[in-house]
Amino acid sequence: MKAVVLERQHKISIREIDIPEPLGVRDVRIQIYNVGICGSDVHYYEHGRIGPFIVNEPMVLGHEASGTIIETGRDVTDLKVGDRVCMEPGIPDPNSRATREGIYNLDPAVRFWATPPIHGILRPTVVHPAAFTFKLPDNVSFAEGAMVEPLAVGMHGANKAQIRPGDVGVVIGAGPIGILTALSALAGGCSRIILADTVQPKLDLSEKLGPIVPVNVSRDKLSDVVAAQTGNWGADIVFECSGNPRAGAAVFETLRPGGAVVFIGMMPAPISYDVVGAQIKEARVEHVFRYAHVYPRSLALMGSGKIDVKPLITDTFAFADSVRAFDFALKMPPTSVKAQIVVQE
Amino acid sequence: MKAVVLERQHKISIREIDIPEPLGVRDVRIQIYNVGICGSDVHYYEHGRIGPFIVNEPMVLGHEASGTIIETGRDVTDLKVGDRVCMEPGIPDPNSRATREGIYNLDPAVRFWATPPIHGILRPTVVHPAAFTFKLPDNVSFAEGAMVEPLAVGMHGANKAQIRPGDVGVVIGAGPIGILTALSALAGGCSRIILADTVQPKLDLSEKLGPIVPVNVSRDKLSDVVAAQTGNWGADIVFECSGNPRAGAAVFETLRPGGAVVFIGMMPAPISYDVVGAQIKEARVEHVFRYAHVYPRSLALMGSGKIDVKPLITDTFAFADSVRAFDFALKMPPTSVKAQIVVQE
Amino acid sequence: MKAVVLERQHKISIREIDIPEPLGVRDVRIQIYNVGICGSDVHYYEHGRIGPFIVNEPMVLGHEASGTIIETGRDVTDLKVGDRVCMEPGIPDPNSRATREGIYNLDPAVRFWATPPIHGILRPTVVHPAAFTFKLPDNVSFAEGAMVEPLAVGMHGANKAQIRPGDVGVVIGAGPIGILTALSALAGGCSRIILADTVQPKLDLSEKLGPIVPVNVSRDKLSDVVAAQTGNWGADIVFECSGNPRAGAAVFETLRPGGAVVFIGMMPAPISYDVVGAQIKEARVEHVFRYAHVYPRSLALMGSGKIDVKPLITDTFAFADSVRAFDFALKMPPTSVKAQIVVQE
Amino acid sequence: MKAVVLERQHKISIREIDIPEPLGVRDVRIQIYNVGICGSDVHYYEHGRIGPFIVNEPMVLGHEASGTIIETGRDVTDLKVGDRVCMEPGIPDPNSRATREGIYNLDPAVRFWATPPIHGILRPTVVHPAAFTFKLPDNVSFAEGAMVEPLAVGMHGANKAQIRPGDVGVVIGAGPIGILTALSALAGGCSRIILADTVQPKLDLSEKLGPIVPVNVSRDKLSDVVAAQTGNWGADIVFECSGNPRAGAAVFETLRPGGAVVFIGMMPAPISYDVVGAQIKEARVEHVFRYAHVYPRSLALMGSGKIDVKPLITDTFAFADSVRAFDFALKMPPTSVKAQIVVQE
Repeated sequence: MKAVVLERQHKISIREIDIPEPLGVRDVRIQIYNVGICGSDVHYYEHGRIGPFIVNEPMVLGHEASGTIIETGRDVTDLKVGDRVCMEPGIPDPNSRATREGIYNLDPAVRFWATPPIHGILRPTVVHPAAFTFKLPDNVSFAEGAMVEPLAVGMHGANKAQIRPGDVGVVIGAGPIGILTALSALAGGCSRIILADTVQPKLDLSEKLGPIVPVNVSRDKLSDVVAAQTGNWGADIVFECSGNPRAGAAVFETLRPGGAVVFIGMMPAPISYDVVGAQIKEARVEHVFRYAHVYPRSLALMGSGKIDVKPLITDTFAFADSVRAFDFALKMPPTSVKAQIVVQE
Repeated sequence: MKAVVLERQHKISIREIDIPEPLGVRDVRIQIYNVGICGSDVHYYEHGRIGPFIVNEPMVLGHEASGTIIETGRDVTDLKVGDRVCMEPGIPDPNSRATREGIYNLDPAVRFWATPPIHGILRPTVVHPAAFTFKLPDNVSFAEGAMVEPLAVGMHGANKAQIRPGDVGVVIGAGPIGILTALSALAGGCSRIILADTVQPKLDLSEKLGPIVPVNVSRDKLSDVVAAQTGNWGADIVFECSGNPRAGAAVFETLRPGGAVVFIGMMPAPISYDVVGAQIKEARVEHVFRYAHVYPRSLALMGSGKIDVKPLITDTFAFADSVRAFDFALKMPPTSVKAQIVVQE
Repeated sequence: MKAVVLERQHKISIREIDIPEPLGVRDVRIQIYNVGICGSDVHYYEHGRIGPFIVNEPMVLGHEASGTIIETGRDVTDLKVGDRVCMEPGIPDPNSRATREGIYNLDPAVRFWATPPIHGILRPTVVHPAAFTFKLPDNVSFAEGAMVEPLAVGMHGANKAQIRPGDVGVVIGAGPIGILTALSALAGGCSRIILADTVQPKLDLSEKLGPIVPVNVSRDKLSDVVAAQTGNWGADIVFECSGNPRAGAAVFETLRPGGAVVFIGMMPAPISYDVVGAQIKEARVEHVFRYAHVYPRSLALMGSGKIDVKPLITDTFAFADSVRAFDFALKMPPTSVKAQIVVQE
Repeated sequence: MKAVVLERQHKISIREIDIPEPLGVRDVRIQIYNVGICGSDVHYYEHGRIGPFIVNEPMVLGHEASGTIIETGRDVTDLKVGDRVCMEPGIPDPNSRATREGIYNLDPAVRFWATPPIHGILRPTVVHPAAFTFKLPDNVSFAEGAMVEPLAVGMHGANKAQIRPGDVGVVIGAGPIGILTALSALAGGCSRIILADTVQPKLDLSEKLGPIVPVNVSRDKLSDVVAAQTGNWGADIVFECSGNPRAGAAVFETLRPGGAVVFIGMMPAPISYDVVGAQIKEARVEHVFRYAHVYPRSLALMGSGKIDVKPLITDTFAFADSVRAFDFALKMPPTSVKAQIVVQE
């Protein structure tokens, strides 16, 4: 099949590759439609590795995908040929302790698309377990379906936060994950989100998506805005989505006594952490690694219209233009949020 | 001052009454604007009592109110003259064990407006503790402010439910509390609400307020609709708002394994409860008595536009027409939800 | 193999039966040592059925068991031949939705020993999944190991209760499950347990097992004792283990505001449930169906000496005396708690 | 009255001091019996300050106390003259937002004994709110009663941890707070505690107090011991009680996936924090500042015998020897845990 292959650092080709995929009894075969480009795809392209994960052999890119079922395994009952679907890209060992306890995302044996040496899905078809394949509601397009993967990160963060209705949230970082976390937190019960970034066009775009108060922290002090917005009490929840160590070190400054912090962005190195600052507010701190059990929740909220990801799909490329798409994503303009490749119209 | 007084069962007058109210150091004096008529007001009018609470002496009616601050006690710092506000009608003993533990609504010493022998607030002014008086956001009118009290019941139910983003909820009963619970649950994270009642006009009105699936249970089977809506898995949360013993006895039928039930409606007598039915789903059952700590949350969600109560204020009466208003409320047409009296324009 | 077979209602034989059990790659083969007699075994003996589960064909009895591993499947890594173990008797479908969400005990497809038509383990050997087989700590005997199954019910209840350190608990019913729930709740953080029953010898035995306050409710009023023990505040948690509808109907009377009730005992029919009584205390009610994820927890507490089940193993029979053992269990004297059969010394 | 007064850094006297204390209607007057010496008392003695709290004027030391009620205010109903009691040393503003929400320990207006400029209780009598004064069970001595204050810190940590029955805990630091946290965690549901320190005599003493596995981390690697004790899965909960930045930076190494960390020890400066290490285990991190609502819980567990603090009271001094007691505490031998002063025999 013809796929978008990262040959090595700096080198992507569109070429034939042989990926034999027999269909198991609980699997489905899916024709791929839309695939979003994630920061991690771009990072492998630029650096050839992410931490311990090294691209030693050619690897198909892409893990944010939607498609249509074209074949079903013998024991599949919930899905049928023709169903429009999206897919969780990580498959755990069903017999691991983590999986049995319901925290399958923490299973070290997870096989995750486009994480070396596992091939991604910028290719015509893929075989996938039915249990990790989810029907799109009728009003959710293939383009939106391919947004469920990054949305799931924000949804998992909103779930961990244990939002209570009416909470005021702070989201640090207005990249795709930050914006999707803001939308998840609003759908999940927050009355409003104070969104911090230094890039004004991202804030301008975000402001239109709901009760979001943008704060350009190159100009205004986040803690001043939060104090003004909360009567000097502080935010109920702070979502750290920037991966910026300085922002990470300051999370407790804007928090209310008894509030919660959720670390979603990954930090390049250990950060400075103010234990006493956390203690005098008795902060609860949660940490998010990918997601678990949230695809159906994300789709339910998109289906009922409470989350609309369409404004975030800012750039679309044809499959034949995939190399150009990755070069675009490498130098994404500040007015863009998410680029997608259309594998199959 | 001139007030709406329930003289005894069946007899309301608008007349002068003397209620001396000195201003404490942490109190505010409020000019009353809008007052909603609650089912309990009507019940006292019709029956002269609710359970152990008996109208033995003339009592001013009304406990759903908004107004403007006209005087502040010496130690009040958060509020000032001219602030537009709404008020929690129940004041607990600040030194009780329940209050200290944060569950002040369960304090047996609570003094609650228009619950004998405590006067309500269908009168020009009232003195109230600043701690139970809340500023209205600029975009929330006095009429909407007087809706916070019944909304608070639904918000407290949504809070107790511990909704996770994307949950599917069932609300049984489309009276004011049922509809406000549906709005609270949607604002609090539910992706959609399946709302059950037997009165079609109420369902027709509710359907327009958000992703609400109406079910006329005089015609359709609730469990069939829930099964269809949830892929035979069941609802994540069932909110019982009807006070109907038969509906109460059936709550576990529509619940998913591991789901939660919230009893909000008060039942006239003990109901039939299927312990085994609850056990095979390991249901968590929560119970709501009034509310605690949810006024600021309700106002935050109204202020950010996530909850809109305006369509529920269907009937408005002048203060001089208060007796007519109560007679109207006694025989509320099915197209009406909430009647209000305007004490001060 | 020679097994204890319930031929039909009223008729148990010890006889040869052919149960072919191939060893799967993740299975272990276990030589059975001790087997406890459970109320459900006796109920099948006496009545030939429990609810919808009917003994239509001869069935081996017994599901509370310990043993030694005598063979391991190819992919088993955590267990080895010679390990002393106990086993969870219910095996869920690993691919069901309930299992994936971590609530495998609620999977309707669970296959449970000695629940028709699944054979129990009063026989020399059994093949079982390694994931549901647990090593006994060195200080836990085979007899104690066979107690983990009923203990797990109490442990699961204690887990659901979300005990906070120092809570005062009430346990209603001093049968095996009630006593094991009391021990679980004490090990799980309760400062003391008020244990209610009508049979004095059971209370006398229980009183010696820890800080347990026995209440003979044929003589004393439980609510009076709880009031005296808690300064009129009520118990933090009430565990209903009697299966008695009248006791079930009264659970809120002894509860504190904001407390929790756990229904563990199964009721023969729906009970009377005081919704208003639960509301004015905003009770949280949990329901237990068997158990999930608690075998390792139970063994950890037995291993460290925090739970001692030895005093509850009051009667032991040789395998050859199994019929006599069941007849004994049918008319258990009030001084007995648990009878066991020793399959292999 | 004659009191133990810290005149300034390095200088303690026993001398007359005038502290006028009128009795409020909800207050009690208490004759002081035993007073424990806390690390903070010693720190003020040695350094004249703790962070922003500076000893600018003579201040009575001591905040861990028990005594007997000798006078009660008019509205006190729960306590009477002659009651043996212990007291919470911090009194919040009852009208603050934090107090109303039930997190009174986070109220910035808290007045705390022996925190400048508030006098402590190394003196004959004190007036205190009845709501923060707690009756000792009959079997709890005055010496044990004065241990409730430091125990409350550990109890609050155990409460925040949300221990599930059978959890394995790690406690880092075997000072008084570390040991009391270990006892709290065991009473609160842990099956066993792995206790880490570098001082062997503290570990030797601790090992005798329950199922505590001592680890001398100057010799053995904590992560090796935890791996061995938990089958390479990790501890369910890690309690950081050392205040050591290096230990604080390593908390996630010994944690299981989905586990919890509780920061109890205060750190002298921000620590290094491995966000990614916390994310791949999705750790929940809680922080403790003093305590709230746990005195009754502590006393319940001491009363029922589940927590025994007697072995920790290693050194007792007469009131007249108070200066010597503080000099002893300044250079506490490793075999000592807690020194107390007997104000009144």
